[in-house]
Amino acid sequence: MSRWTRKDLTGLDELSSEEIWHLLDTARAFKGVGERSLKKVPALRGRTMVNFFVEPSTRTRTSFELAAMRLSADVVNISATASSLQKGESLKDTALNLQALRADIIVLRHGSAGASRFLAERLGASVINAGDGAHEHPTQGLLDTFTILEKRGKLEGLHIAIIGDILFSRVARSNIYALTKLGAKVTLVGPPTLVPRAFEKLGVEVVHKLDPVLGSVDVINLLRIQHERQHKEYFPGLGEYIALFGLTKARASRLKPDCLIMHPGPINRGVEIDSEVADGSRSVILEQVTNGLAVRMAVLYLCAGGVGLSS
Amino acid sequence: MSRWTRKDLTGLDELSSEEIWHLLDTARAFKGVGERSLKKVPALRGRTMVNFFVEPSTRTRTSFELAAMRLSADVVNISATASSLQKGESLKDTALNLQALRADIIVLRHGSAGASRFLAERLGASVINAGDGAHEHPTQGLLDTFTILEKRGKLEGLHIAIIGDILFSRVARSNIYALTKLGAKVTLVGPPTLVPRAFEKLGVEVVHKLDPVLGSVDVINLLRIQHERQHKEYFPGLGEYIALFGLTKARASRLKPDCLIMHPGPINRGVEIDSEVADGSRSVILEQVTNGLAVRMAVLYLCAGGVGLSS
Amino acid sequence: MSRWTRKDLTGLDELSSEEIWHLLDTARAFKGVGERSLKKVPALRGRTMVNFFVEPSTRTRTSFELAAMRLSADVVNISATASSLQKGESLKDTALNLQALRADIIVLRHGSAGASRFLAERLGASVINAGDGAHEHPTQGLLDTFTILEKRGKLEGLHIAIIGDILFSRVARSNIYALTKLGAKVTLVGPPTLVPRAFEKLGVEVVHKLDPVLGSVDVINLLRIQHERQHKEYFPGLGEYIALFGLTKARASRLKPDCLIMHPGPINRGVEIDSEVADGSRSVILEQVTNGLAVRMAVLYLCAGGVGLSS
Repeated sequence: MSRWTRKDLTGLDELSSEEIWHLLDTARAFKGVGERSLKKVPALRGRTMVNFFVEPSTRTRTSFELAAMRLSADVVNISATASSLQKGESLKDTALNLQALRADIIVLRHGSAGASRFLAERLGASVINAGDGAHEHPTQGLLDTFTILEKRGKLEGLHIAIIGDILFSRVARSNIYALTKLGAKVTLVGPPTLVPRAFEKLGVEVVHKLDPVLGSVDVINLLRIQHERQHKEYFPGLGEYIALFGLTKARASRLKPDCLIMHPGPINRGVEIDSEVADGSRSVILEQVTNGLAVRMAVLYLCAGGVGLSS
Repeated sequence: MSRWTRKDLTGLDELSSEEIWHLLDTARAFKGVGERSLKKVPALRGRTMVNFFVEPSTRTRTSFELAAMRLSADVVNISATASSLQKGESLKDTALNLQALRADIIVLRHGSAGASRFLAERLGASVINAGDGAHEHPTQGLLDTFTILEKRGKLEGLHIAIIGDILFSRVARSNIYALTKLGAKVTLVGPPTLVPRAFEKLGVEVVHKLDPVLGSVDVINLLRIQHERQHKEYFPGLGEYIALFGLTKARASRLKPDCLIMHPGPINRGVEIDSEVADGSRSVILEQVTNGLAVRMAVLYLCAGGVGLSS
Repeated sequence: MSRWTRKDLTGLDELSSEEIWHLLDTARAFKGVGERSLKKVPALRGRTMVNFFVEPSTRTRTSFELAAMRLSADVVNISATASSLQKGESLKDTALNLQALRADIIVLRHGSAGASRFLAERLGASVINAGDGAHEHPTQGLLDTFTILEKRGKLEGLHIAIIGDILFSRVARSNIYALTKLGAKVTLVGPPTLVPRAFEKLGVEVVHKLDPVLGSVDVINLLRIQHERQHKEYFPGLGEYIALFGLTKARASRLKPDCLIMHPGPINRGVEIDSEVADGSRSVILEQVTNGLAVRMAVLYLCAGGVGLSS
């Protein structure tokens, strides 16, 4: 079995399937920690993690913060609006400063693709990508993969549909890399403006209609519609989007009885997914959140070379 | 003696007098922790508390944060402006996510009455109300009650006046519930627009003039005038308010020599209370702050089922 | 050798040279902690530090936060925008509240000169000045002094030039006090509007041209140009500033081969300092950051009367 040798996690594209399996195995070992009343192991005691979020994200920040605390690391949060970046300092200079403070791990959320790779190459500290532009969100890809594996016992041969704004989605990219490496079949579904044919190069299927896919998939992963954000010109109207790609009750009834319904959250009830369907028995949306913590513990532990966990 | 069986503290209205006594007794046991140089006990080690403040409040947030730290819990702060609520996620969905992260305790400050009860009924986690609209602020009611009890050795038969904006005050309501259950006599004082007769149903006296009350009360609790806030149409002008209800030096001189002067803070010097009076020997305003920490430690400890404190 | 008897650090002006040496010696003992993988000592376990920043500063806040964590203290962050100060509460009342919460140490960043002294005189808690207006920034002065001492093995007889906006710089003042007390020669360099002759009273030399100084100094400390801030009327244009006072490559080539190049950060590459020069072998800018943590650990430890470090 492969040993983990990376100090960073910048994307799933560059990982081997053995490395992804190792991350998933480690996450499984950590999942139990969150279920205990004493939710803490001393693996990273005395290490320092900096949550450096240049784009805001309460969910991902909180998940990483709790993951670090449960490994007994010290955590400092730095957000862009409060940071020196406002004074015109470059990302690199800010990061060099964090390293000079002897941060062991820098978790970076940034609006630009490649930001975490840029830092990883320049710092001795571990750099964990918590989302960089439309590039990757590797811990989200891992937690989605972990959830499917846990529920289905395998990935090989499963058919997973990812629905929505693929073009601008780092979540989609990280899912595609992990799932295809581990032997799943991935179908991307959305309007042509958001799911261009070019994605086929990644070894996935591209379709522009949801209905024909419903009966055959084992997992349906609904991406969040960022209708408060940019990219308006790429989108159909909200009503049209729901009509074509929303997981309504009618559509949900045509899914396989054991089809997993996933969403990276936060969900827009009544948009990507009907409210009852989101709360239904096939939905694993909240389990994804729980698994995110286990996956992040594993990533921090492996990249920072944690000790004290007999693995 | 009653054992504590609740996972939540959403209000004092629903507590029995035995439960309130149990909370006060437990707070007394914890008060000493804050006076040591090593201000920490391992009672909630490995537990996770989320400070979820949808309305800002540095004081209450800090007090809960320190209370949790002194119980050795891990603390994550989430504020509304940074949170997913901005992205349109509902309170319930955000809370379900916090629970999926295995938060043991959620401390909620929210602008809507009933918000913490709503969550408490839907979550397995402990939910502690840190103020919900004009409904309740139970830890404030407890700390005020604790302070009076500590200073006077009893509550039975004491006469407590609460002055100011009762109508919109969660502090007033939580005080009324605790004090009347424990046998004190409560008089509400303020203009008719802010202290309607309907409060008499709660078993308190309602009066619209402060001066006749001064000589007979054992405690005077001055609510903060939120003159930066809403409700302008209910208020007299600031000058008129001070003239009628401000605790000026002249009025303070007519209080009993041992009358306790209280205020939930932050005080508006020269408005609700004369500056010298606020700093005088009968003022227990800062002791209220200290006691707030002990009370919050007790609430967190009891609701989260802490261990390791022989009580 | 002098023992440390102060509960506060409000400035370097009031310290004896023995006290400054004691701080620097203690910092040296702590520096090693940051180089270990377990970067933590139990010296302030169970103590509470409040980072109270009425002016924002991510760097200084983070450095103090990490210093406290590495001493095992509990840390609470309070920023002005979130704090009660917005509700019109005075600095003193906010601080009395922090003391009532049994904060052991209050680290204060404030826009007004004298703010930390004001609190130190009124509180039993330790008050550490993290920058007060244009008055002092004592931990910055100490870390600069520590860095020079570490690199050169002495301070006596060294010649240090400080360049830029001296008039409004608390960094300059704290450097001047520490360096002159420990026997170094200090020359202030900048336009007459920013480096008035009156500074000569502090025992330093004032000059208005940089070029004549370059060949003779052992250390050149470049202050940050706050061109986003106030004081525009005192400044030459940016281009003119660079032409006269910027450490260009040409100027750097005229420095002594072993001249230390310092900057409190964040640097404006191409303004105060050429980008390559900032990254060059004589630059100790990032070591200043590392040393800042050691110095702050020493300050917190000594002022709060930490235990468990055999010194």
